[in-house]
Amino acid sequence: MLIHDMPRQASIDLLTRMRLARLACAHEGQPYVIPIYCAYHDNCLYSFSRAGQKIAWMRANPLVCVEADELVSPQDWATVIVLGKFEELPDTPQFELERKRSYDLLQMRPVWWEPGSLKAESSEKTHAVEFGYFRIHIDQISGRRGIPDTSSSRESSAMHEAPTGWLRRILGRAEHQKGDH
Amino acid sequence: MLIHDMPRQASIDLLTRMRLARLACAHEGQPYVIPIYCAYHDNCLYSFSRAGQKIAWMRANPLVCVEADELVSPQDWATVIVLGKFEELPDTPQFELERKRSYDLLQMRPVWWEPGSLKAESSEKTHAVEFGYFRIHIDQISGRRGIPDTSSSRESSAMHEAPTGWLRRILGRAEHQKGDH
Repeated sequence: MLIHDMPRQASIDLLTRMRLARLACAHEGQPYVIPIYCAYHDNCLYSFSRAGQKIAWMRANPLVCVEADELVSPQDWATVIVLGKFEELPDTPQFELERKRSYDLLQMRPVWWEPGSLKAESSEKTHAVEFGYFRIHIDQISGRRGIPDTSSSRESSAMHEAPTGWLRRILGRAEHQKGDH
Repeated sequence: MLIHDMPRQASIDLLTRMRLARLACAHEGQPYVIPIYCAYHDNCLYSFSRAGQKIAWMRANPLVCVEADELVSPQDWATVIVLGKFEELPDTPQFELERKRSYDLLQMRPVWWEPGSLKAESSEKTHAVEFGYFRIHIDQISGRRGIPDTSSSRESSAMHEAPTGWLRRILGRAEHQKGDH
């Protein structure tokens, strides 16, 4: 496997295709990460969530990180990491356009899921759930892609390769380095 | 869809089955999240990584969060969130047993992938890569599961349901609340 840094546009293209990502926020040194459903537009990621701990944390500290990926096989994958800032889109006239944009973006594509949107022990029929839209302003994007090394005959393209390939060699090298093997 | 808090043992069972998770760390208020390959054993998650920013950050602030999930459909999913503390397992006699345990655990199961283990622009044949084992001591586990609400005839079990179901109703409710629709 060869690993390359992705050009910025390729990273943005991945963000544009994806809907499911992981969002990390932090409060007093404690990070927290959750899956989110989101959509990219014009250097922002749009999403929504029920009111809860992560929204309270991001109000207090808007610095966030979002990770999105496409995993085809152990040797064929891409991952994009975004550093950015949280901005709430409250239900006020000032944010009407941005809330409409959020809705339009989020309803455009097939849904995966959104576990953060509903309370535990509730159903989608519960109307008391409070939630809101937010967006992440992107400050930095970095992307990395793994591609099969076609010059190597040792690699397998199997989706769930047993660890006899490059990873085993890495793991084994650690053991070898300390003389166990 | 109904959403339930998972019992602790069910969350541990998911951690035991999974290999691919997302790890979040934080440095001076900036969170960072990456995919990791890891394995659960006795209230710890074992993993490895090349030396890099995230290892430096976790040395400085060992508070971390790990998210693992199993996504079957938009109405059938589980996600587990762990809060814990990073501990490096350096190549010294004191940690020999734990490094051996890491190796045994990580080589037991099929590999997904581990983008953090190699440098960009390198290949698995590059022997100069520095990496090491670490583990996360688990302080808190919380799990949440979404299951289809069989009493509702409105739901679809399609993997990529168009947003005409519960999510559309949530999104639409937001619009309705502000009187746009």
